[in-house]
Amino acid sequence: MSYKFEPGHRRDRIHEIIFEADTLEGKIFDVVLLVMIMVSIIAVAWESLPTLDPGTKKRLYNLEWLLTIFFTVEYFLRIISVKRPMKYITSFYGVVDLLSILPTYLSIILPGSNTFLVIRALRLLRLFRIFKMANFLIQGDILLKSLKSSMAKIIVFVYFILVMVCIFGAIMYVVEGHVNPEFDSIPRSIYWAIVTITTVGFGDITPSTALGQFLSAILMITGYAVIAVPTGIMSAEIFKKQRRLMRSNRISTQACRSCSLEGHDEDAVYCKFCGDKLHTDDNDR
Amino acid sequence: MSYKFEPGHRRDRIHEIIFEADTLEGKIFDVVLLVMIMVSIIAVAWESLPTLDPGTKKRLYNLEWLLTIFFTVEYFLRIISVKRPMKYITSFYGVVDLLSILPTYLSIILPGSNTFLVIRALRLLRLFRIFKMANFLIQGDILLKSLKSSMAKIIVFVYFILVMVCIFGAIMYVVEGHVNPEFDSIPRSIYWAIVTITTVGFGDITPSTALGQFLSAILMITGYAVIAVPTGIMSAEIFKKQRRLMRSNRISTQACRSCSLEGHDEDAVYCKFCGDKLHTDDNDR
Amino acid sequence: MSYKFEPGHRRDRIHEIIFEADTLEGKIFDVVLLVMIMVSIIAVAWESLPTLDPGTKKRLYNLEWLLTIFFTVEYFLRIISVKRPMKYITSFYGVVDLLSILPTYLSIILPGSNTFLVIRALRLLRLFRIFKMANFLIQGDILLKSLKSSMAKIIVFVYFILVMVCIFGAIMYVVEGHVNPEFDSIPRSIYWAIVTITTVGFGDITPSTALGQFLSAILMITGYAVIAVPTGIMSAEIFKKQRRLMRSNRISTQACRSCSLEGHDEDAVYCKFCGDKLHTDDNDR
Amino acid sequence: MSYKFEPGHRRDRIHEIIFEADTLEGKIFDVVLLVMIMVSIIAVAWESLPTLDPGTKKRLYNLEWLLTIFFTVEYFLRIISVKRPMKYITSFYGVVDLLSILPTYLSIILPGSNTFLVIRALRLLRLFRIFKMANFLIQGDILLKSLKSSMAKIIVFVYFILVMVCIFGAIMYVVEGHVNPEFDSIPRSIYWAIVTITTVGFGDITPSTALGQFLSAILMITGYAVIAVPTGIMSAEIFKKQRRLMRSNRISTQACRSCSLEGHDEDAVYCKFCGDKLHTDDNDR
Repeated sequence: MSYKFEPGHRRDRIHEIIFEADTLEGKIFDVVLLVMIMVSIIAVAWESLPTLDPGTKKRLYNLEWLLTIFFTVEYFLRIISVKRPMKYITSFYGVVDLLSILPTYLSIILPGSNTFLVIRALRLLRLFRIFKMANFLIQGDILLKSLKSSMAKIIVFVYFILVMVCIFGAIMYVVEGHVNPEFDSIPRSIYWAIVTITTVGFGDITPSTALGQFLSAILMITGYAVIAVPTGIMSAEIFKKQRRLMRSNRISTQACRSCSLEGHDEDAVYCKFCGDKLHTDDNDR
Repeated sequence: MSYKFEPGHRRDRIHEIIFEADTLEGKIFDVVLLVMIMVSIIAVAWESLPTLDPGTKKRLYNLEWLLTIFFTVEYFLRIISVKRPMKYITSFYGVVDLLSILPTYLSIILPGSNTFLVIRALRLLRLFRIFKMANFLIQGDILLKSLKSSMAKIIVFVYFILVMVCIFGAIMYVVEGHVNPEFDSIPRSIYWAIVTITTVGFGDITPSTALGQFLSAILMITGYAVIAVPTGIMSAEIFKKQRRLMRSNRISTQACRSCSLEGHDEDAVYCKFCGDKLHTDDNDR
Repeated sequence: MSYKFEPGHRRDRIHEIIFEADTLEGKIFDVVLLVMIMVSIIAVAWESLPTLDPGTKKRLYNLEWLLTIFFTVEYFLRIISVKRPMKYITSFYGVVDLLSILPTYLSIILPGSNTFLVIRALRLLRLFRIFKMANFLIQGDILLKSLKSSMAKIIVFVYFILVMVCIFGAIMYVVEGHVNPEFDSIPRSIYWAIVTITTVGFGDITPSTALGQFLSAILMITGYAVIAVPTGIMSAEIFKKQRRLMRSNRISTQACRSCSLEGHDEDAVYCKFCGDKLHTDDNDR
Repeated sequence: MSYKFEPGHRRDRIHEIIFEADTLEGKIFDVVLLVMIMVSIIAVAWESLPTLDPGTKKRLYNLEWLLTIFFTVEYFLRIISVKRPMKYITSFYGVVDLLSILPTYLSIILPGSNTFLVIRALRLLRLFRIFKMANFLIQGDILLKSLKSSMAKIIVFVYFILVMVCIFGAIMYVVEGHVNPEFDSIPRSIYWAIVTITTVGFGDITPSTALGQFLSAILMITGYAVIAVPTGIMSAEIFKKQRRLMRSNRISTQACRSCSLEGHDEDAVYCKFCGDKLHTDDNDR
């Protein structure tokens, strides 16, 4: 639906190239954009290396500015070409697109803020859309929905974990605090409790007394057994989601010939709404 | 149901404010209480910082006493206003409320015991009730019920883990004990075995001999594969709980008056087996 | 079924006390035994402490011998009182009972072998039987059966993990070996790969080169994603086990009045074996 | 189906011995091969030990060459005996077989490349086939299929993790970089974020500032809660796979010839809906 020889023609054309991936130009644009985002992230990471020689640093700095100017032009073209600019600007991708160019300009006043250019990584989420990886989009959608519907359970769970690490942190501060400088404050002890209950176990803070080690053991086994809870939640949720998808296939698709209502079980003999006998497709099979 | 111009009026009014969150005063009281609990926990944690200057320490100390006096008054008001005081005092929240004020008074005799004021974190569990987050309460309830009904399985599992770490701990003490001072006793070796099987892996105690590392590898893979057990238990349990909830909502419990068969969907009007009209309880509702 | 005034009476009486927990004497014996096993394990662990003074060591040594003699007498009484001694001796508990007394005697020749007395921990498995914790026994049984029926899958999974750590270990040896003394041999590198893939992460061996850290990152994410496999296996297995238990309840218990066969679905109208109409109990309800 | 007295007889005989495990010779060959592969892997690992004396090194070196020559002969015999050599050469096992001999020859030019002989571990995957462990093959197949059908979800998940560690890595670089030399570059910080979110927690890089520890705590709890996602995916997937297998066994696909309804149990003789005799395919079998 491209309007030709009309005032809005150029705007539509830009929209087609930038926002869609159906035409050749659109696809080329998207791939070029993708490569530039990746290059830009690698450049930011590279620039942070402490062993970098000044020459490379200079070249990476220039590259960064070049890419930022490109992304800035792209950002304004997006605003111009879209029908409702405010909607795009306030959308998730609109905010990400803006945040992806701001750090470079900010780094003139605030040196070092260009590190936040890594936020460009979020722009890669468009990846799935560009290459029409519909299946990935559906799967991501199932995951998001499962996460959303189990969010209440997970918040309750995280809340319980937080109360627990507070109490364990305080106990460990009392038990270890006076003999072990690693447990020199309650916040640090709580940090340790989180490191322990999540089974991360850095080892930068470790109990040294027998009682401290005994309490740690309790905390570890709790964390080890309790990890089962969010996992169980997600398993049940994903399984339920998939089954609902499956079941919607299993309920017979036939409609009653009398009342035209659908939703009968596959083993139903009579319409559950009007009481008429169901003339199932099975007869024709 | 507030009794006005009667002897018990004042008591009921206090009860309404303190225990309930339906009236404006009740809600304000709850929010103020909540903020004070949080402030008090942060103050206790802050006070424990070793780098604290005496001025701040003094001010935090005063704040702590102020809050404790407030919580003490609140505690006695709760006892007075409630109908059966003993029931409140011996309830979970009653005990927590008492334990939340005791440490400050105890710290006069036993300095440092005010650390246990973090137990106030448990008072935050009232949070969900206050803000009427019914969904969270239901979800928490499902989690608790799932935990309870899988408790027997989890105890058996933890028991198995404990027997296993005892045996592995002893073996590692024999294998590493003479060459590695980190494994200098069986309790320490058992502590190490717990750190390892739960995949926490602090690294404060690590095997140094080839045999020790080989045995550790076995313990780690065991722990890695065995974590699946409590997770599987919880998954199955939560899924079962949710399904029971789902089913009880979806399939009506009524039987057809003609053929006495059950299992009709809630929206069914006619029996799906004999075609007779269903006389649902809905008619009477 | 206790034979009184008969030759085997004494043997039966001993059997009743030692093996069963129905009579008062049997229960007392079991509880005493339990306490002694626990005391003995604590004694062994305590004895291993390097800071122990000679006096306590001596007393613990004597306690150990006392308990071992008691357990030895008990072992022989079990052999005498049981009907088929060889069956008991070769059973799991028979072997454990023997291994629980041998180390003390062995320690006369081989000092230090008494550490293996911790094997007595396995005797605690009788715990559930003694206190008639039938539910725990059933749950443990479900767990064991789930483990058994998913054993083939878990072996395949562990096998895959082993092949993977071998290859990753070798690659890391090549990448890190020349610059990092921690990766000085393939077995050590494989040990590191196991520590990493199981997410234990001691930190005693860590990559120092950029390439090594990149490869580690891949291994970690693999381990993190792959843990899902045994968990998924166990979840599915336990859920299936429980559902089978549940379903056996849900299939109607009625038998066909014509052919007396059972196993009809709850919604069946005609006997699926003889074609006769089913006269369901529902009619009587 | 062995062709005797024909030109291809010798080739068929070699094929039978090398590729199949039905005849005695074939079985002996496979077991010998298996032992040699294991010996060869142990030899490579052993050779890498830094404390090895020159004599053993020499002997292991000779052994390696001996085994490699044997495997080379075997490889060419496989090519000769198979009907379509190119198909074998380009197959998974064909490539593994070639890669299993190349490193030794390569080590003449490139010393140290013989480390890659561990790739021979992949040859052990034939193990299950040799010993006719059909059950293991089926289970491995179910696992692979479950992995494949949940691959899209897992890729989306890993992608999300990667975006997240990039952003957290950059934030930690900004927060810790100037005070903590361990966070001296973004790539290192991302490496740390991966170590943390996967709950490996080496402890070689740890946050030292309060803000850094606070952010770490968020990352850890995220990692701890998010592990539930791939696990939930796999649980649902494996369960679905097993149920499909189960159902296809249990419920016959036949429809009643009278009422055309399906869903009868496999042991059903009469239609459970209309009472007519079922004309099952079993009659024809």
